[in-house]
Amino acid sequence: MNITLEQAMEAVKAAQKKAADIGTLMNIAVVDAGANLTAFARMDGAWLGSIDIAIRKARTARFFNMNTGDIGQLSQPGGSLYNIEHSNGGLITFPGGIPIKNSKGEVIGAIGVSGSTVENDHTVAEAGTKAVK
Amino acid sequence: MNITLEQAMEAVKAAQKKAADIGTLMNIAVVDAGANLTAFARMDGAWLGSIDIAIRKARTARFFNMNTGDIGQLSQPGGSLYNIEHSNGGLITFPGGIPIKNSKGEVIGAIGVSGSTVENDHTVAEAGTKAVK
Amino acid sequence: MNITLEQAMEAVKAAQKKAADIGTLMNIAVVDAGANLTAFARMDGAWLGSIDIAIRKARTARFFNMNTGDIGQLSQPGGSLYNIEHSNGGLITFPGGIPIKNSKGEVIGAIGVSGSTVENDHTVAEAGTKAVK
Amino acid sequence: MNITLEQAMEAVKAAQKKAADIGTLMNIAVVDAGANLTAFARMDGAWLGSIDIAIRKARTARFFNMNTGDIGQLSQPGGSLYNIEHSNGGLITFPGGIPIKNSKGEVIGAIGVSGSTVENDHTVAEAGTKAVK
Repeated sequence: MNITLEQAMEAVKAAQKKAADIGTLMNIAVVDAGANLTAFARMDGAWLGSIDIAIRKARTARFFNMNTGDIGQLSQPGGSLYNIEHSNGGLITFPGGIPIKNSKGEVIGAIGVSGSTVENDHTVAEAGTKAVK
Repeated sequence: MNITLEQAMEAVKAAQKKAADIGTLMNIAVVDAGANLTAFARMDGAWLGSIDIAIRKARTARFFNMNTGDIGQLSQPGGSLYNIEHSNGGLITFPGGIPIKNSKGEVIGAIGVSGSTVENDHTVAEAGTKAVK
Repeated sequence: MNITLEQAMEAVKAAQKKAADIGTLMNIAVVDAGANLTAFARMDGAWLGSIDIAIRKARTARFFNMNTGDIGQLSQPGGSLYNIEHSNGGLITFPGGIPIKNSKGEVIGAIGVSGSTVENDHTVAEAGTKAVK
Repeated sequence: MNITLEQAMEAVKAAQKKAADIGTLMNIAVVDAGANLTAFARMDGAWLGSIDIAIRKARTARFFNMNTGDIGQLSQPGGSLYNIEHSNGGLITFPGGIPIKNSKGEVIGAIGVSGSTVENDHTVAEAGTKAVK
């Protein structure tokens, strides 16, 4: 199962709405089940450096079917996945990337959000995932 | 002057509609005046290799405020810009990338389209640029 | 639809057998529908430089659902896809990469072969695709 | 002395069997004495991000003829090999990479496994090394 562009766009729009609601400017990326970019939007004035981070968060979340922040807890000094960020041409392992599942619980893609605190990034990403049925 | 996300999304939607009208599946990218990604959409089933090409076409068109195909005529063996594709981490210089201008004629961004013949790519990109007022 | 490891291994083995039959030493790569590596084998003594080429051929074939050699005919000087090789971190567009289809004709992955003449590479890749039902 | 494809494939199969026995889905890579990829297999449904990690673990283990986890203990903040991961285009230094030796104790290659906890990755890699005589 693979996310459709229509589903990806719904996730982007829901994330954008949540970002506006909490007063932030976000970069929002959605990748498909193969970790390939499907949809992207940068809100006017959002950080330029977050374009790449949003895309990498989405890819990282799909690469391991895990929230990026969970990986980041394992990649700290002394952690079991220390410096995993050096793989795959560069991972981003702080919060803001979340796998997207369909109604059967299958991972069909992932969303990555960057542009504010990692807490806000995660909140906005979560709003995006909820828009996909 | 810089393209807004709203304008970029209108360009993406118009390009998507044109792509559907001519029976093609496209990757569509829009960059802003700083040549940074603003919006992206991959139609379901569109070539995976065209994600990167669409983005590079948009960047290339804004890098030189020129249609990508015009650059490609100068980058041929013996041409004045021979192998310019080696710059900027990789340019794409065949048709499908077009600068986006506002009503005053100022370049505010660019669109890149990839997924079919270069003629179709250019046609779809052009439809995208016309949606931006 | 996505190729399974079992199918990918059958393709690798069939390619290996054909390579031996025609007296060549090959690198053989299979990617899935998402263009991600699924299986790989390098025959003893095969060119080291062909590891990367085999993988890129497989990826290129899946990126555009086309034999790599067909893309290479369009990417020549004066051709419509001139210098497309600069995209996607480096494409290989000479023969030896072929999409793999299931019995319904859907592309489920691709094979890339490198280690001899491009004619031999293509022949061996073709033997690999035929092993997948 | 260099690992043969036949030996590498036996390592892959033994690792695959062990992975199935302990209920995990793994990416398994084998490199030769020159640290060049020899064989690779991704079990159906295994993490996509682990393709690259498995290959890097195998390379890292052969680069230093050491288990990757041993290097990771030295690459921590304050350690003697702090951030060695930045070398060689990116190393992976947590467990799952093990040198492969022949019956004389000579290193003839290495195996890298990724797809589960680092303990499971190491267990599966070890099963692979034992299959090589």
